[in-house]
Amino acid sequence: MTPEVSYVIDTFFALFSFVLIIFMVPGFAMLEAGLVRTKNVTAVLMMNTMIYAIASMAFLLIGYSIAFGDFGADGMSKWAAFLFQMAFVGKIINIVSGGVSERARIVPFVFFAIIMAGFIYPTVVNWTWGLNMLEGTMLNLNMYDLAGSTVIHSTGGWALLAAILIIGARKGRYPKSGGVRVIPASNIPLVTLGAFLLWIGWFGFNGGSVGSIASKENADLVALTILNTNTAGLAGAITVGIMMYLKYRKLDITMVLNGALGGLVSITAGPDLYNIYQPILIGAIGGMLVVIFVPLFDKLRLDDPVGALSVHLVNGIWGTLAVGIFTDKLFMDQLKGVVVIAIFAFVSSYIVLFILNKLMSLKTTPDEEMEGLDVNECGLEAYPEFKRAF
Amino acid sequence: MTPEVSYVIDTFFALFSFVLIIFMVPGFAMLEAGLVRTKNVTAVLMMNTMIYAIASMAFLLIGYSIAFGDFGADGMSKWAAFLFQMAFVGKIINIVSGGVSERARIVPFVFFAIIMAGFIYPTVVNWTWGLNMLEGTMLNLNMYDLAGSTVIHSTGGWALLAAILIIGARKGRYPKSGGVRVIPASNIPLVTLGAFLLWIGWFGFNGGSVGSIASKENADLVALTILNTNTAGLAGAITVGIMMYLKYRKLDITMVLNGALGGLVSITAGPDLYNIYQPILIGAIGGMLVVIFVPLFDKLRLDDPVGALSVHLVNGIWGTLAVGIFTDKLFMDQLKGVVVIAIFAFVSSYIVLFILNKLMSLKTTPDEEMEGLDVNECGLEAYPEFKRAF
Amino acid sequence: MTPEVSYVIDTFFALFSFVLIIFMVPGFAMLEAGLVRTKNVTAVLMMNTMIYAIASMAFLLIGYSIAFGDFGADGMSKWAAFLFQMAFVGKIINIVSGGVSERARIVPFVFFAIIMAGFIYPTVVNWTWGLNMLEGTMLNLNMYDLAGSTVIHSTGGWALLAAILIIGARKGRYPKSGGVRVIPASNIPLVTLGAFLLWIGWFGFNGGSVGSIASKENADLVALTILNTNTAGLAGAITVGIMMYLKYRKLDITMVLNGALGGLVSITAGPDLYNIYQPILIGAIGGMLVVIFVPLFDKLRLDDPVGALSVHLVNGIWGTLAVGIFTDKLFMDQLKGVVVIAIFAFVSSYIVLFILNKLMSLKTTPDEEMEGLDVNECGLEAYPEFKRAF
Repeated sequence: MTPEVSYVIDTFFALFSFVLIIFMVPGFAMLEAGLVRTKNVTAVLMMNTMIYAIASMAFLLIGYSIAFGDFGADGMSKWAAFLFQMAFVGKIINIVSGGVSERARIVPFVFFAIIMAGFIYPTVVNWTWGLNMLEGTMLNLNMYDLAGSTVIHSTGGWALLAAILIIGARKGRYPKSGGVRVIPASNIPLVTLGAFLLWIGWFGFNGGSVGSIASKENADLVALTILNTNTAGLAGAITVGIMMYLKYRKLDITMVLNGALGGLVSITAGPDLYNIYQPILIGAIGGMLVVIFVPLFDKLRLDDPVGALSVHLVNGIWGTLAVGIFTDKLFMDQLKGVVVIAIFAFVSSYIVLFILNKLMSLKTTPDEEMEGLDVNECGLEAYPEFKRAF
Repeated sequence: MTPEVSYVIDTFFALFSFVLIIFMVPGFAMLEAGLVRTKNVTAVLMMNTMIYAIASMAFLLIGYSIAFGDFGADGMSKWAAFLFQMAFVGKIINIVSGGVSERARIVPFVFFAIIMAGFIYPTVVNWTWGLNMLEGTMLNLNMYDLAGSTVIHSTGGWALLAAILIIGARKGRYPKSGGVRVIPASNIPLVTLGAFLLWIGWFGFNGGSVGSIASKENADLVALTILNTNTAGLAGAITVGIMMYLKYRKLDITMVLNGALGGLVSITAGPDLYNIYQPILIGAIGGMLVVIFVPLFDKLRLDDPVGALSVHLVNGIWGTLAVGIFTDKLFMDQLKGVVVIAIFAFVSSYIVLFILNKLMSLKTTPDEEMEGLDVNECGLEAYPEFKRAF
Repeated sequence: MTPEVSYVIDTFFALFSFVLIIFMVPGFAMLEAGLVRTKNVTAVLMMNTMIYAIASMAFLLIGYSIAFGDFGADGMSKWAAFLFQMAFVGKIINIVSGGVSERARIVPFVFFAIIMAGFIYPTVVNWTWGLNMLEGTMLNLNMYDLAGSTVIHSTGGWALLAAILIIGARKGRYPKSGGVRVIPASNIPLVTLGAFLLWIGWFGFNGGSVGSIASKENADLVALTILNTNTAGLAGAITVGIMMYLKYRKLDITMVLNGALGGLVSITAGPDLYNIYQPILIGAIGGMLVVIFVPLFDKLRLDDPVGALSVHLVNGIWGTLAVGIFTDKLFMDQLKGVVVIAIFAFVSSYIVLFILNKLMSLKTTPDEEMEGLDVNECGLEAYPEFKRAF
């Protein structure tokens, strides 16, 4: 294959992958809009929209050069390479914004998005996929993380944990009398639509992360990556479905879909390294972890309306470690990557959010929360004509 | 073109087609969730999700090797070839699950999905697109069916007919006083979204079925296939629109969209064989058949809430025969294929569903049906906050 | 690269772009269905569906040959080239149908779609991207308009203006006591989903309009085009977000999303000509224009429920002129193109709509409007089970 043919095909393939990832923007938006109460739906959608816009712009103007230096790429158009990387950045903040839904104000998180997309996340990328300013130091990371179980998902998860610790739970979620008040999702079709748009976006996320399709070997690797990505999602969904049915004789669709997403996160570190059967086990464990950790976080009173901690943080860690267990990559390298990035992501996010919280309060007032964020943050309701049952 | 360039492009094209087909998963889910009553929406979504997961996994572990033998493909990555084939399998069971909506329990149909995706459908594929164990026998099929008017759509349709015969109608659908009680669709935007996601998925379904884009001839053939696919959908929609308007002076959107889908099914056997005008006629007839058969099936008390028998079974047959009418393929070969696969698909599905029904009852109790499947099957409502008008 | 490789890649790329544009069909449908009142949702969806079907068919049978002569293309499959062009045509009429929502009858606009897609739009394309029957005359246009800021968006906008002038405002929109009655959007998740599907479609619209990806230069140009398209959308959303927040301390999501769409329209004339920073300014101005013109059109009592005049007409003009301001294309050539096409599109649409209005009335009766178009035009409600709050 001539270099020009390869250049054209890889540019096209990167653009294809980019487009698939952008489907995750409405994907996250629909998933989260469906999981919250009707009175907070518009605010969730606005948050998702502004975060995509602001984070992408910050990455264009600041973040990309921290991560990768000048615009440039070998073997494909530098703009295609940039677009592919830029598509990732909104996702990481979506993880944060989803988990603080129903009580987080939009504007402070827009500022957080600038810092996350402009500085924190690019630093993580610098250390792993980018220029690597840690090279030659004791902290140099040899972690294998193809498409970001750690770089994206647990980084976002740690930032979310920081945010939840600062912002606290939704009003009435953990009553003084003990236990957890169930707050049902308001629109299940949106949850389902969102989950499948995310699933489809993952094919671009992971497939595109192979970096090139323009040789026989790479074409095989891309196809294997997409196959394994899908298989882990299937296994996550099936495992949670079986667990739910055995325990409750009911199939809770929000858990099953989160199981699929957990499976997808768990495969993301090494979909190109496994044979076609290993993802079944890895994704199944990913699904199980969701079932185990969702109630566990509630026991810890870490209120996460969309299950993002279990899906992204726990499975991001599991997925990264799985590469050390199922392949010949060193487990200690994987663990070191998880730990170093955990410390950096959590601490830096905590500091930034702590300061932001002092400056402008991350959380709505209890009255505003009661009335719903839509009216207070956006000035309009999501479904004004539908009479509410409660 | 060197073999490597061709290998890379065809792998990429198969992955592109695969992704488009996967949009049919939310496509079917949204279409069916919009067509049923709110009390059954979550169950429909759960059914669609579990079926995709289970059927794909069964095809990976069992079905593919029955259909095609070992993993392997000439001229493209074997994993891309597998993914493309795997994407089909969920569709066939979607056809079944859609038509038994609002009274079918999820778990038995999950078991059916395993058998359908693991054995019945792969056998049909073996005879047509695969290894062909019938070769040399009297039953050897020479039917031309590019993307599955018969292999997918009428196979699914026959299985659905078997299911409806066993499971019966929804409570109150056919009152003792005679006639048919209209049960209106609960969410028309979802129906529309779902129909267009299916329509878009069809471009991958039919376009990808050409098998290769990597030559001038094949590129032309793929483009012609996608053009003709679209044209048949347009013609189906327009024809039903005109028929509805002339008869009722109203444009019933669920019928128009089913007309489009009928047109799409009807072109699926031979979109690469027609000139650019023939699909107008074929799709128009496809639309008409939907208008004729939807009330006819109701007269026969075959209760099919989403019109799947008319769209998939009737038009699957029509589309396969159309190849024998409008091209130089032999009509008798087409008819033989339709009949042989009809008998196999109907009988095998009937037996499997009959046994399953004895083991675990395919249908909910009348009380559960009255209350809605969401609460009983899934433990949560689709729209808990919206006050119901009835 | 051999001509065959180039032919295959460009055919594939055109099909990829086509598919992205087709996502704009559900995109427009969901956007508009979310922006209108529940009683008019089915009618809006039916209008969108029929228009896509009818306009595409008219373009296949009549329009394409007026614009481009015989089917044919250099360097790619003629059917892929046709599909890409056909995908545009529904959009232009979507612009019209969106702006006359909630009081326009479907059937007359279906007839208008035939004339628009069969004659008016193809004539505009003939003058700009096609055969150019004006060549050698005084009217010969040298306007640069890569993907249709003028050819698509302001053409559609002028036709919409003609339609609004003829059809008038919704009942009660401009009370006799003065001012404007706010009519809130009924479903914000649909608005958001629709806007992002449009955004994604734009990557195919603009990227595909480069015409070829099959060389190093063209691959760079396509990637730059998609990057700049996205950036203008980001800038439009951010600008409107800031303006809304500074003015009202609320983030009105419908305005922010229309700001993004305004940014996308404004970049469409020259996304391949700018550096990567210019689209920030162009898109930001695009967003501002939406904020300025939405209330202005209301002051002029031009009732446009979805903001289409501001998004498509105003920004179509702005985007075309921007090419004359920010690049070395002549401003006067851009202006001349805007004016000539404005006159042609407005006058021809006005005449056609005026005659149609005499023949069959474009507008529903006040009683039908009050009751809602869904019942009267389609015979079914969009959400029959949800109790209405008003």
